[in-house]
Amino acid sequence: MSEEDLARIDAYWRAANYLSVGQIYLLDNPLLREPLAPEHVKPRLLGHWGTTPGLNLLYAHLNRVIRERDLDAIFVTGPGHGGPALVANAYLEGTYSEVYPAVGQDVDGLRRLFRQFSFPGGIPSHVAPEVPGSIHEGGELGYALVHAFGAAFDNPDLLVACVVGDGEAETGPLAASWHSNKFLNPARDGAVLPILHLNGYKIAAPTVLARLPEEELEALFVGHGYRPYVVAGDDPATVHRELALTLETVCDEIAEIQRRARTGGDRTRPRWPMVILRTPKGWTGPSEVDGRQVEGTWRSHQVPLAETRSDENHRAQLEQWLRSYRPEELFDETGALRPELRAVAPSGTRRMSANPVANGGVLLKDLAIPDFRSYAVKVAAPGESFSEPTRVLGGLIRDVMAANPTNFRMTSPDETASNRLAAAFEVTDRTWLAETVDGDDHLSPDGRVMEVLSEHLCQGWLEGYLLTGRHGLFNCYEAFIHIVDSMFNQHAKWLKVTRDIPWRAPIASLNYLLSSHVWRQDHNGFSHQDPGFIDHVVNKKADVIRVYLPPDANCLLSVMDHCLRSRNYVNVVVSGKQPTPDWLDMESAIEHCTRGIGVWDWASVGADDPEVVLGCAGDVPTLEVVAAAALLGRHLPDLRVRVVNVVDLMRLQDEHSHPHGLSSRDFDALFTTDKPVIFAYHGYPWLIHRLTYRQTNHDNFHVRGYIEEGTTTTPFDMVMLNNLDRFQLVVDVLDRVPRLAESAGVLRQRMLDERIRHRAWTRDHGEDLPDVRSWQVPDDDATS
Amino acid sequence: MSEEDLARIDAYWRAANYLSVGQIYLLDNPLLREPLAPEHVKPRLLGHWGTTPGLNLLYAHLNRVIRERDLDAIFVTGPGHGGPALVANAYLEGTYSEVYPAVGQDVDGLRRLFRQFSFPGGIPSHVAPEVPGSIHEGGELGYALVHAFGAAFDNPDLLVACVVGDGEAETGPLAASWHSNKFLNPARDGAVLPILHLNGYKIAAPTVLARLPEEELEALFVGHGYRPYVVAGDDPATVHRELALTLETVCDEIAEIQRRARTGGDRTRPRWPMVILRTPKGWTGPSEVDGRQVEGTWRSHQVPLAETRSDENHRAQLEQWLRSYRPEELFDETGALRPELRAVAPSGTRRMSANPVANGGVLLKDLAIPDFRSYAVKVAAPGESFSEPTRVLGGLIRDVMAANPTNFRMTSPDETASNRLAAAFEVTDRTWLAETVDGDDHLSPDGRVMEVLSEHLCQGWLEGYLLTGRHGLFNCYEAFIHIVDSMFNQHAKWLKVTRDIPWRAPIASLNYLLSSHVWRQDHNGFSHQDPGFIDHVVNKKADVIRVYLPPDANCLLSVMDHCLRSRNYVNVVVSGKQPTPDWLDMESAIEHCTRGIGVWDWASVGADDPEVVLGCAGDVPTLEVVAAAALLGRHLPDLRVRVVNVVDLMRLQDEHSHPHGLSSRDFDALFTTDKPVIFAYHGYPWLIHRLTYRQTNHDNFHVRGYIEEGTTTTPFDMVMLNNLDRFQLVVDVLDRVPRLAESAGVLRQRMLDERIRHRAWTRDHGEDLPDVRSWQVPDDDATS
Repeated sequence: MSEEDLARIDAYWRAANYLSVGQIYLLDNPLLREPLAPEHVKPRLLGHWGTTPGLNLLYAHLNRVIRERDLDAIFVTGPGHGGPALVANAYLEGTYSEVYPAVGQDVDGLRRLFRQFSFPGGIPSHVAPEVPGSIHEGGELGYALVHAFGAAFDNPDLLVACVVGDGEAETGPLAASWHSNKFLNPARDGAVLPILHLNGYKIAAPTVLARLPEEELEALFVGHGYRPYVVAGDDPATVHRELALTLETVCDEIAEIQRRARTGGDRTRPRWPMVILRTPKGWTGPSEVDGRQVEGTWRSHQVPLAETRSDENHRAQLEQWLRSYRPEELFDETGALRPELRAVAPSGTRRMSANPVANGGVLLKDLAIPDFRSYAVKVAAPGESFSEPTRVLGGLIRDVMAANPTNFRMTSPDETASNRLAAAFEVTDRTWLAETVDGDDHLSPDGRVMEVLSEHLCQGWLEGYLLTGRHGLFNCYEAFIHIVDSMFNQHAKWLKVTRDIPWRAPIASLNYLLSSHVWRQDHNGFSHQDPGFIDHVVNKKADVIRVYLPPDANCLLSVMDHCLRSRNYVNVVVSGKQPTPDWLDMESAIEHCTRGIGVWDWASVGADDPEVVLGCAGDVPTLEVVAAAALLGRHLPDLRVRVVNVVDLMRLQDEHSHPHGLSSRDFDALFTTDKPVIFAYHGYPWLIHRLTYRQTNHDNFHVRGYIEEGTTTTPFDMVMLNNLDRFQLVVDVLDRVPRLAESAGVLRQRMLDERIRHRAWTRDHGEDLPDVRSWQVPDDDATS
Repeated sequence: MSEEDLARIDAYWRAANYLSVGQIYLLDNPLLREPLAPEHVKPRLLGHWGTTPGLNLLYAHLNRVIRERDLDAIFVTGPGHGGPALVANAYLEGTYSEVYPAVGQDVDGLRRLFRQFSFPGGIPSHVAPEVPGSIHEGGELGYALVHAFGAAFDNPDLLVACVVGDGEAETGPLAASWHSNKFLNPARDGAVLPILHLNGYKIAAPTVLARLPEEELEALFVGHGYRPYVVAGDDPATVHRELALTLETVCDEIAEIQRRARTGGDRTRPRWPMVILRTPKGWTGPSEVDGRQVEGTWRSHQVPLAETRSDENHRAQLEQWLRSYRPEELFDETGALRPELRAVAPSGTRRMSANPVANGGVLLKDLAIPDFRSYAVKVAAPGESFSEPTRVLGGLIRDVMAANPTNFRMTSPDETASNRLAAAFEVTDRTWLAETVDGDDHLSPDGRVMEVLSEHLCQGWLEGYLLTGRHGLFNCYEAFIHIVDSMFNQHAKWLKVTRDIPWRAPIASLNYLLSSHVWRQDHNGFSHQDPGFIDHVVNKKADVIRVYLPPDANCLLSVMDHCLRSRNYVNVVVSGKQPTPDWLDMESAIEHCTRGIGVWDWASVGADDPEVVLGCAGDVPTLEVVAAAALLGRHLPDLRVRVVNVVDLMRLQDEHSHPHGLSSRDFDALFTTDKPVIFAYHGYPWLIHRLTYRQTNHDNFHVRGYIEEGTTTTPFDMVMLNNLDRFQLVVDVLDRVPRLAESAGVLRQRMLDERIRHRAWTRDHGEDLPDVRSWQVPDDDATS
C-alpha cells in the first residue's frame, strides 16, 4: 500500500468518522466554520459512537478492494446500533442524496444529514430500513451472520462482508451461525467474509471473545471451519496497512476457493477465510472525559461526551474531537466531499450502499408456480375420503423447487420429511457440505432444502434470502416456531417500515408452514403443544401479517399458491400432516379460500335461518364441528344449525383493524346478531374474542380451543382434554339454545356418556375408537 | 476395569436397554416368559429409541464413578426424547417405585412400567417432570448445558453430568452455552461435565458435528475452553473399557481443578474436561429392518420396528431384540433386578434419580429479604416528586444479594447498569473468569451478577438455578425478552405439570424485571419496541403466571418483595427506569398492590358516581391518565371522573379464568356497568379486551396502547404516535360521554391543538416540552 493510498484511505475514514460524530451531536454549523456554540448541539444526544469508527474503517477498506477488483459486494452490519457509520458512508458515496434529494452534497445537506439523525421526525439511530445498502435492521443483535449467508446463497458473484460485533457474538443465534459454512456451496453460492470486530466491550462490560487467550480464540474459529486472519492495533497507519494487506489475502483466497469449485471440480468444503479485527472501542474519540478513560472502554458505547450543551469543557472537547478529523481537508467550500476522496469509493451499483442486492425487491422475479389445481385430490362428497394435506402440498412444493432452481429455497429444522413434504427430495437434496458416508440420504452440495436443527438458522437464512430478492418457505413444527418469535418481530418491523419507503421495492413474503401442530402432538406430548405463534403474529401491523388455517388438502394448495405469489407479508399457514377428511373439491376450495370464510351448507341444517352457529378454524376443529353438526342433525333434526368455516383468520377482525376484515354487515350475515355461536378454534380460545370483540354478536360467542392440557396420548384424547371434542360441542349447543333447555336432557347425558366411553376405551386400548376419524354418525347410531 | 466389573456394568446397561424397549413396545408379558403375541404389543408405538442406548450407557458408567468416589451428581438429559432411558434408570435404582408405589419392583410393576409409557392416562414419552431425577423437560432441545451450569452455580460439591445430543448441539442456545465455562468459579461452584453424544443423526439427516474432521471437532472445543476426551466405537466391551477409563480421568481432573482453586488459591479459569462419545444411533437395536440399515442411522430415531402388531416378522424381530438383552439373567423370579446388578447403582440420595438437587424445592430456603419499606421514597403528595423506580429497587436488590450470598443470583444481558440496578455492584461484581485488564469494572470470579449478551443464557442459567432450589431475578430490556419466549413456554409447562406431582416440592418463582420498556425506547427506536411478552405469558395456565405493572417506585418495591417470596410462578414485572412521578407513599402503595387494582380518589373527581372511568396499567399510561384527569378537572370541573389504576394485570380477568380475577360484582363496582371506560394500557391494547370480554361493561371499554408506531424520538412523541397521550385521552372522554357531545367542541379543538403544538415543538427542538413530565395543569393553563 503506497503512502498516498494510505493517506487517502485514512482521509476517507476521517470523513466518515466526522460525519458520524456530526450526526450524533450537531444541529448546525456542520463544517465548524464558526466556533461551536451551545445552540449548535442537539439537546438530547441519542446514538452509539463506540462501534462506529470500526465500521467506518472496514467500509473504507472494503471500498478499496471493491474498486481494485471490481467486486460485487454488500455490507452486513452486525453492530446495527452503528447507524451513524452506515448513514455516513451512504452519504459519502452519494447514494444517500440520490434517494433523499433533500439531503444534498453541500453544507445545507450536511446540516440536514446531521440534524435528522435520532431527531423527532428524522431517522432512527440504528441501521434501519431507511439506510440505503442495508438488508438488516440493527436493533436486536445476533442475526448478522445468518443473514449474510442467506444473502450469499444462489448469488455466485456476490461477496457479503459481514461485521460481527463481539457483543453480538455472545448470542445463541450468532454462535450457531458460524456453522453456516457447512451449507454454502462455493460453486453455486457467493462468498461470506465474516469480520469479527473485537472492540472489546458491550454496553457496560468486556466481551467474552475479547478476553480469550489468542490461541484459544483462533482454535475456536479453526474449529468452526474458518481460516482466521487477525488484524490488531490502535495506530491507524499500522492498522490501515495490515487491514489492506489482509483484505487482499482473503480476497485472493476466496477467488481461489471459487475457482477450484467452479472450474476445478472440487466438491469438498473449503476452509473459508475470516478476519478478526481488534481495535479500540470508540477509537479516535475522546480518550478521557472528566478524568475517566473513555476511548478503548465500554464508556464510549453511546455518547462519550454527554453534557455538550451545558458544560463548556465537554463542548470544547467535542469541538476538538470533531476538528481532529480536519474537516477542511475533507470537504470543499460548498460542503461537498473532495473529488480525490470521492474516488476512494466505487461508483454506480458497485457502491455497497447502491448494490441492488441490498434492495432485493428490485431484483425479484416472479416465482414459476405450476397450476396448483393439478395437485388437487378428488373429492366425491365432503368428508368421504382422507388425505394428508402437507403430503399433497409436497407435490406442489417439489415442482416449485424444480421450476425455480436458483431463486427458491425451503428451510426446516430437520422436519421436512416428518412434516410429509419429502416429495421435494424427488427433485433436490438437503444442502450439505460436511462429510458424507455411504448410505446417506439426499445430501448434496447442490441440495436446495436447507435443514439444520436450529430454527434460528432456518429463519435467518430465509430472511437473508428474501431480503436479497428471492423466494422461500420455512416448514416447522408449530410449537417450536416460538423460538424465532423475536426474529419474526424484527422482520415484521422491517416490512412495516419499508412499506413507507418509496425506493424500497417489495420483496417476497416470508411464508411459514406450521405442521405437526398442537392437536397432533400425541407422539411428543405437552412440551410440543403451543399454538400461540398466531397470537404473537397478530400483534404486528395488520398491513404485513396474514394467518391461514386451511381445513383440508385442497384448501392448503389454494392458500399456499396465494402466499407464494404475495409480496411484503408474513404468511402463517397452519396445516396438519395426518389423514384429514377432504371437505372441498378444488373449485369449491378456491372459492372458499378466496372468500376466506364461508357457510358450509352441506354441513348445515337450515343454514339460512339458524338457531345456532358452529364456527371453526383449523383442520381438527373443523372435523369436530362437522361431526358435532352431524350428531345434532341425527338427534335434533329440527334444529337449524349453520356451520361457518374460517380459512383466513384475519377475516374475523373488523374492516378497520385489518385489510381482510369483514364489514359489520358481512360479519353479522355470517354469525347473526343474536344467535349463540359455538366456535371451535385451533389455538388459544381468547384470540377469537380478541379478534371479534367489536362485532355485534360477540357476547354470544363461546369459544373452544387449546387450554394447555395434553400429554402423550391419542388424538381424540387431546381434543377431549381441551373440551374441543364433538360431544362437548353438542353439549355446548344444548346449553346455549334456549328452546332446548328442557327437552335435551337425555341427549346431553348421552353425549357426556360418549365422552366417557371414548376416554375409557382409549385408556384401555391405547388407541382411538375407529369412529372418531370420521365425522359421520354411523347408521346404527354410535351414540347409543 | 476388571472383567467382572465390565460384565456387571454391561448387564446393567442391558437391563436399562431392556426396560427401555419394553416401555416403547410392550403392553404385557414383560419378562417374555411366554412367546411374544400381538396382544402383548402396544397398538400405537410412541417413543424414541435412537438416543436411548447412549443415555443408558452413560448413566450406568456414571453410577460406577459415583459409587467409587461417593460423588454428589445429577444427570441432565439433552436428548430429552430419550424418556425411556431415564425412566428405566430411575426404576432400576428403586426411586421410581418409591415415588410411584403402584409401579413396584416385580413382574406386575414391570407390566405397569411398560404399559404406562406413552399410553393414554400414563406418562409422557419425554424426560418430563414426572421422571425422578430430572430437572429438565426434554421437549424442546437446546437448553441442557445452560441448565447444567445453572444447577452447578453455588453447589460446590455437585457434579452435573450433562449429555448434549449432537442434534441439540446445532441449536443457537446450545452453541452459546459452551462459553458458560467463563462464568463458573471452581472455588465456589460445582462442576459441569459436558458429554457430547455424537450418535450421528437427527430425525432424518446426519448432524453437523458428527461430520467434521476429528481435528476440527477437537479444535472447536479447545477453542471453547475445554479439554475434550474422545470415546468412540461400536463394540460394547471396548467402549465400556474406554468410557470407564475416561470417566476416571475426567473425575480426577475435576478434583484437581477444584483442589487448586479451593486450597491452592488459583483464581484463573481452568480448562475443564469434557467427553465426546461417538457410538451408533439405536445401538444394540435391530441392525436392519425390511432390508434397510436401521442401527447406526437416522432410521432408529423413533421406533425401529413399526408393525409389531400386524407383521409377524417385525414381531419376531422385536422378540429377538428384547431377548438379546437376556432378561432372565437380569431379573429374578419375582421380576426384581438381581442384587448384584442393583449394587451397580449408588444408594439413597447418591442415586441420580433421588438426588434432592433434582427436586430443588426440597432444598429451597426462604430468601432473607430486608424490609422493603425501608427503601421507600418519601411522597409528600401524589405526583409531586419523581423517582427512577428501578434505581430505587436497586437498593433492595443490593441488600437481597448481600443477605443471600449463596442462593440468589441476578442475570442480565449486559443491562443491569442500563436498567439502573447498579447498586448491586456495591456488594458484588459481575461473574467473570475470562481475562481481565486494568480498569475493568466490577468483574470477579466471585461476582453474583451474571451478565452475558445472550438472553438465552440468562434465562437458562436462572432456570437451572431455580430448578435446583435457589432464587433469582432476570432483568432485561422488555422488547428482547421475546428471545426467550420458547424457553419461558417450557418452564411454564414444567411448573404446570409439577403442581400436580405430590413429591415435587415447590420451587422459587421465575422473576422477570422488564425495564427500558416500549415507551422509553426513544434512544433506540422501533426495533426495541415490543410489549408483547405479556400477551405470550398470559396464554399459559393461570395457575402459574402473574403480571405486574407497578405505576411508581414504591409500588415496584412492594410488588418485587411479593414476587421474591412467591413459589412456583412466573412473575413478570414491567417497570420503567426513567424519572416517574411518585404517586403513592409506602403504606398506600402496599395497600394498592395488595389489592392489585383500585380507585385513585385523589386523581378523580366525583369518584363515587362517575360519568366516565379512566383506567390505567403501566407507569407511562398512568402518568398520561392522571394528567388527562387533571385536564378534565380544570376544564370540566363538573365532570365526574374516576381513575382506576391496575398493578396486578390478572385482576382484570374474571374469577373463573384466573385465581386473581375479580368477581363480576367487584369488577362492576370499579368499572361500572354502563359508563364509558377509557383505558390506557402499557402494551398492545387488544390484551385488555381479551382479559375483560366477559365483564358486564366490556362493550364500553375503549383501550389505548402500543400500536406498533415509534422510532428514535422523544418520550412524548412516542405516546402521541400511539394515541396514548393525555390530550388524546381527553378527546376520547369527550367523544364518549354523551352529555358532552355538544358542549365540548371548543375543548376538543384545544386538545387537538395541544397535540400539534407539542409535536411541532418536539420536531423543532429535538426534546420534549418541559411540562409533559408533570401531570399537573399549570396555573396559567398550559392548554391555552
